[in-house]
Amino acid sequence: MKRITRWQRSCLTLLVGSLLATPAVATQPVLDANASDPRVMGWMQGFPPAADKQVDFSNYLRFPRTRWAFSHVRELLPTVAVGRGNGTASTLVAAPRNEIDELVFPLADGSSMTWNESLAANYTDGIVVLHRGQVVYERYFGALQVERPHMAFSITKSFIGTLAAMLVEEGALDDQAQVSHYVPELKDSGFGNATVRQVMDMTTAIRYSETYSDPTAEIWEYSRAGNLIPRPADYAGATSLYDFLQKVEPEGQHGEVFAYKTVNSDVLAWIVQRATGTSFAELLQERIWSKLGAEQDAYIVVDQVGTQFAGGGLNASLRDMARFGETMRNNGRFNGQQIVPEAVVADIRKGGDPAKFAPAGYATLPNWSYRDMWWVSNNEHGVFAARGIHGQTIYVDPKAEMVIARFASNPVAANGANDPISLPAYAALAAHLMKQRQ
Amino acid sequence: MKRITRWQRSCLTLLVGSLLATPAVATQPVLDANASDPRVMGWMQGFPPAADKQVDFSNYLRFPRTRWAFSHVRELLPTVAVGRGNGTASTLVAAPRNEIDELVFPLADGSSMTWNESLAANYTDGIVVLHRGQVVYERYFGALQVERPHMAFSITKSFIGTLAAMLVEEGALDDQAQVSHYVPELKDSGFGNATVRQVMDMTTAIRYSETYSDPTAEIWEYSRAGNLIPRPADYAGATSLYDFLQKVEPEGQHGEVFAYKTVNSDVLAWIVQRATGTSFAELLQERIWSKLGAEQDAYIVVDQVGTQFAGGGLNASLRDMARFGETMRNNGRFNGQQIVPEAVVADIRKGGDPAKFAPAGYATLPNWSYRDMWWVSNNEHGVFAARGIHGQTIYVDPKAEMVIARFASNPVAANGANDPISLPAYAALAAHLMKQRQ
Repeated sequence: MKRITRWQRSCLTLLVGSLLATPAVATQPVLDANASDPRVMGWMQGFPPAADKQVDFSNYLRFPRTRWAFSHVRELLPTVAVGRGNGTASTLVAAPRNEIDELVFPLADGSSMTWNESLAANYTDGIVVLHRGQVVYERYFGALQVERPHMAFSITKSFIGTLAAMLVEEGALDDQAQVSHYVPELKDSGFGNATVRQVMDMTTAIRYSETYSDPTAEIWEYSRAGNLIPRPADYAGATSLYDFLQKVEPEGQHGEVFAYKTVNSDVLAWIVQRATGTSFAELLQERIWSKLGAEQDAYIVVDQVGTQFAGGGLNASLRDMARFGETMRNNGRFNGQQIVPEAVVADIRKGGDPAKFAPAGYATLPNWSYRDMWWVSNNEHGVFAARGIHGQTIYVDPKAEMVIARFASNPVAANGANDPISLPAYAALAAHLMKQRQ
Repeated sequence: MKRITRWQRSCLTLLVGSLLATPAVATQPVLDANASDPRVMGWMQGFPPAADKQVDFSNYLRFPRTRWAFSHVRELLPTVAVGRGNGTASTLVAAPRNEIDELVFPLADGSSMTWNESLAANYTDGIVVLHRGQVVYERYFGALQVERPHMAFSITKSFIGTLAAMLVEEGALDDQAQVSHYVPELKDSGFGNATVRQVMDMTTAIRYSETYSDPTAEIWEYSRAGNLIPRPADYAGATSLYDFLQKVEPEGQHGEVFAYKTVNSDVLAWIVQRATGTSFAELLQERIWSKLGAEQDAYIVVDQVGTQFAGGGLNASLRDMARFGETMRNNGRFNGQQIVPEAVVADIRKGGDPAKFAPAGYATLPNWSYRDMWWVSNNEHGVFAARGIHGQTIYVDPKAEMVIARFASNPVAANGANDPISLPAYAALAAHLMKQRQ
């Protein structure tokens, strides 16, 4: 299995690399976590960094530069702040459990691995584990530091999904209304006659491919529209996220199956912003960030007309991600207040319809579903998670009273590359923590 | 005088506007502060903002868009954080003196104006006045808010100048050494055989024009090199700040006269970073920002290879600017600690040589000088100031025990447009505060 995983990594990395800029050399091996440590690579050291050690807009999404870039996104792209406010940070009590490093857990192929080994295997940049609200484990690697925001990628979706669900709960947003009710500009697009609920649960039926290995996939024009990657000199595509969304075509029947497409999150942000007259960053700041007792301001990547990238543009510190995970584990209550209504957390934890999720074919996620832009395991622990490409997660295990926040820069841009190690590791840690404390 | 001022404004604005992007209509009048209020203009309102209400990289430096842009720089450009740390903010006691609004002061032409009128006349975005360390006056206009960083422009220079002076005081930097000792790449440039001290006091003799009204002035290629303004499709100039600096040619004899040239500040930052192995942002964070008890993280604009723009890229909240001004007024002591050595403040206050300053011909600054990248009045109040284009200032009046921090977006990119109103206003306020409290 290890051999296949490595081959898959090489293959996908090269494909992604070649799409993003200059062609990679086909025989180039993929560096492991230690060899690709950004301090070892020497990225952006010196004044100025040597030409071959620079990370810039043209190359930042290519591994191994990603290992530096994901902790320095604001130095590469325009961003908008999500302020923590002027209060003191909420306390996270440290109660380290150093035996966790040696915890051995089995993989699907019958081999085994220690927890500590798993972190390198998955190119972890940082990880925080809370058990019963206390920090039992916390590590930072490479470019990430405790106070430094890291790109959360699609974890962002779970924030806009939660905010939307809060608005639905309050009656400020009608999840049965059609998208075009809130955003007339999308009337003739594939989203126009979908319901807000179908957008929230990604059961819209639209023509949009997010297969990174396919150079004709719509994700590439979307990324160029959002100014996330350079545009060719002869570029004639959309020049903002919302320009692109209006061009998305229908394909099939809404509501029938789950299909993971980032554009839904930006449609949802558009809807939420129109319904409230407030930007995603402002809503996030007012309703969540300022109430968490966050340690750090967070920020969101914006396109050239200031559109906040709700599909994947949030950057935040790892501890603040853990605080939000703990909020969700505690049914929305944290830092002395009810931040997310209990009914909203219950709606997320109830999950979507696994029968609609199954056709998507996620081998590592049997019987899971997707609700309010959260991934829901429907397992006996009630696990639910926010997940982002390259290995980002907020993983909530209510039965084990455990929350994991993790940032990573796995060279493979797909959770299928992380899950075979990460999910068994998280489950084993949950079992360990439950056993030790009983 | 008002008529001339208005004509000058129109003229310069149009010249700057035409250089920066599309030609402006020659007969277009310059909007006053109320008409150009960004909320009135409706910049960046709605999701997305209407096409003619967008502020983007191609137009953000054109008045009246500047009035929104200067409070939203990170949404337009890549930036690096200057962290405040996790401590509580230092207390600024509010002791409002509302009579200040009605304070009448004379202008050079014999007319007079109230303090309140002067704020609009100079397109003030925000102003904080400390008297004996207490906040006696605080106002925000347009896009600026108490917690929002604003572009400080050349106030940035005073920060790198202060840091350099601190290093000289410690013996970590030799201000008598040649520039090429620290930065060999500058050996063949106009800076190579200048001393660090000549860079710090801007008495280098180099071929570099900062006349914004001259389209062939070097400031324009410098701005393109730094990615501060768009590059034409056929652009073949420098692509980073430090690439540009190496091309600057000598012109005359170093040390003879003061000549205000932004490139000196970036040369100084290059020297300081080479001498310490630490970036400008990190030095500022470690040695000043985290000690001030700053309310907000600050940030610095970076070019495409991450070079921090020490000539003008700092953005910070107004209260934090006031905290630094108060530190300097108190001979370097603030928030319970000596942040800047007393000897460094004394060196700044002593000023440079007025005889070397005089040939620069600043009509509004008779007998002033420039030292450690601060403007020093050498007057009986011992006034010294950090000053930035479009009206930014930290103005310290030791005798009156007064500090003024002000952000503005005056359409004219020259302090000569602000000083005829601002300097009399500040002097009148100083006299008022001294009188009232005796």
